[in-house]
Amino acid sequence: MKTLEVELGPRSYRIEIERGFLKQQARRLVEVSGPGKSVIITDHNVEELYAEEVKRRLTEVGKEPLILSVPAGESSKSLSRAESLYRSLLEHGVRRDGTIIALGGGVVGDLAGFVAATYLRGVRYVQVPTTLLAQVDSSVGGKTAINLAGGKNLVGAFYQPVFVAIDPSVLRTLSEADLRGGYGEIAKYGLIRDYPLFKKVTGSYESLIETQNSAELGETIFRCCQIKAQVVSQDEKDRGIRQILNFGHTIGHGIESIADLSELKHGEAVLWGMIGESWISFQRGYLSREGLSEIVRSLRAPVLPALPGQLTPEKVLKFVQSDKKNRKQELRSVLLREPGRKARVEKINSDEVVQAIDFIKEVQRDVDSDIGDQRS
Amino acid sequence: MKTLEVELGPRSYRIEIERGFLKQQARRLVEVSGPGKSVIITDHNVEELYAEEVKRRLTEVGKEPLILSVPAGESSKSLSRAESLYRSLLEHGVRRDGTIIALGGGVVGDLAGFVAATYLRGVRYVQVPTTLLAQVDSSVGGKTAINLAGGKNLVGAFYQPVFVAIDPSVLRTLSEADLRGGYGEIAKYGLIRDYPLFKKVTGSYESLIETQNSAELGETIFRCCQIKAQVVSQDEKDRGIRQILNFGHTIGHGIESIADLSELKHGEAVLWGMIGESWISFQRGYLSREGLSEIVRSLRAPVLPALPGQLTPEKVLKFVQSDKKNRKQELRSVLLREPGRKARVEKINSDEVVQAIDFIKEVQRDVDSDIGDQRS
Repeated sequence: MKTLEVELGPRSYRIEIERGFLKQQARRLVEVSGPGKSVIITDHNVEELYAEEVKRRLTEVGKEPLILSVPAGESSKSLSRAESLYRSLLEHGVRRDGTIIALGGGVVGDLAGFVAATYLRGVRYVQVPTTLLAQVDSSVGGKTAINLAGGKNLVGAFYQPVFVAIDPSVLRTLSEADLRGGYGEIAKYGLIRDYPLFKKVTGSYESLIETQNSAELGETIFRCCQIKAQVVSQDEKDRGIRQILNFGHTIGHGIESIADLSELKHGEAVLWGMIGESWISFQRGYLSREGLSEIVRSLRAPVLPALPGQLTPEKVLKFVQSDKKNRKQELRSVLLREPGRKARVEKINSDEVVQAIDFIKEVQRDVDSDIGDQRS
Repeated sequence: MKTLEVELGPRSYRIEIERGFLKQQARRLVEVSGPGKSVIITDHNVEELYAEEVKRRLTEVGKEPLILSVPAGESSKSLSRAESLYRSLLEHGVRRDGTIIALGGGVVGDLAGFVAATYLRGVRYVQVPTTLLAQVDSSVGGKTAINLAGGKNLVGAFYQPVFVAIDPSVLRTLSEADLRGGYGEIAKYGLIRDYPLFKKVTGSYESLIETQNSAELGETIFRCCQIKAQVVSQDEKDRGIRQILNFGHTIGHGIESIADLSELKHGEAVLWGMIGESWISFQRGYLSREGLSEIVRSLRAPVLPALPGQLTPEKVLKFVQSDKKNRKQELRSVLLREPGRKARVEKINSDEVVQAIDFIKEVQRDVDSDIGDQRS
């Protein structure tokens, strides 16, 4: 088992990473829970795969939990879904000494975390992420969220879990797109803070993702959580350094907004976003041409998903400019001064966004023509 | 002007109490606001009385706010109302650097505070309470809340304002029931922490409430905020000492749940609740007979509102037992060991609740017969 501490004074907590955690460590979940009722919040997919198993294990050690399950997918991150969860918690007599166990991917973690943050003004919760993206990113750091019609994650709270349990063995049931999404965030950690990590994961995509039952995957998840924990400890409320975790996300969100959810996962859009924002970093003279080339080569090699067909610079720009979370009306993005180092949030202008999208489309054309070459 | 600090480390803030604040100190509200847009959240009653005035004053000093107004009354503390406020904030381009000004009574403060706590994971907010109850109690301490069908304040967050501005001159537009409600909470501060305050306010109800344009009212509000600020600083999240602020509330909530909202205000039910809980304190041998008599005599003298006609011990007990916020299934209440000192949360049993209600009804009968005597 590998363990990490997220240092946040009275809100500090531990991350434990272990293959087989869900089967073998139910007792740990009980130890970090309150004396009252425990409730697993999960989605219909994960319920079938893991929730019943976790319930059985918890019951064996004397803490039978309730299971509340929501439809899989982003549409469950709604206030009406939160309201029906509140109602269920009330009906089942969950009080301030109860504990919510968020068992699932990013959607479940965000929703269950928000419910935990606000039910009776806050009950404790545990993150048990079951996707690669959630294991390396969204389960750590206490960002909880609900979507509004006007956009994603517009309602939420900073509310830390009391514990994060990561079991890499559950990843074997993930789709390739889900794995690729997680891989996008892993590459991001490498580019902002640890270039050897970036080189390693982009150089061993196959062994990391396809034969993922390796110790290597556990190591990689550990390293990502370590970076995340360090950054969050310095800036819990996302007012400064934590924003470097958004590398690839300004343009990535723009691309994501154009794609159907079925077409492109969040982490996949971030892969493209990192190429765009690396390009801006290069244009400003921060990154060398070699640096940019190496980033693009590494990211495109085995893994880049197809861009949405309807992608235009204008559409991306329009979304980025209207992004409700931007401070004032400024466009901002994380730029790199060296691969793996000195990431910084800076203002960018709309021309740079347009040119970055042109560059991205060029990369896509190169990929297409390479595939064509291989076929001919 | 009188000022106080609520000491909560990085979440500390100031309370300023001054007659005429709303007209004369708009600049102070601007100083504590963020650089982005300001939004006044208020209700339809207060909008007409004060919101336009505050808007004009803020505009004069260069910060024209948006006004968002909700229907007056408890039914506005709903998730659907919060959702429509989120939508309005989005539509008007309020971002993370914006500020919400909660201008109104407890309902507005709770609702606007909850929206501030959760919109974009938290924007700053200022409390500008316009009822006596909100000025002495709910505007200080960061409890924000929404009601569910299953009960009051079941969803919420601990989220501190950045500033509290109290203008006692706005109280002149309050109804007598609203004043009496505030008076109930003032008497509570006296009974748990400052018996001379209790004696003073119960001995001078008329000058305090009816001719409320006195310096005395400002003093009294200051003293209540001071007690609240001290208690909140010691226990922000309501896990220990802060619970003494619930004196009178276990039984008070039970009485409130039986009454129509139009019949009995929260603070009025608390007046009766304090009589009931003082009686339990006496029965346990904590309070002397003289202590109990003096409390009852002081509270009933000019101000006790009529109990709901349908009040029975069984109904109150049923509500108290089902109160969703109780830890485990235990009944708990604040008991006094001396008037004004040594308030402590303790378990109570259902017999004590039943007997306390019997005692309360006896007090009501005495009041009725005194009134009868005066009439005959």
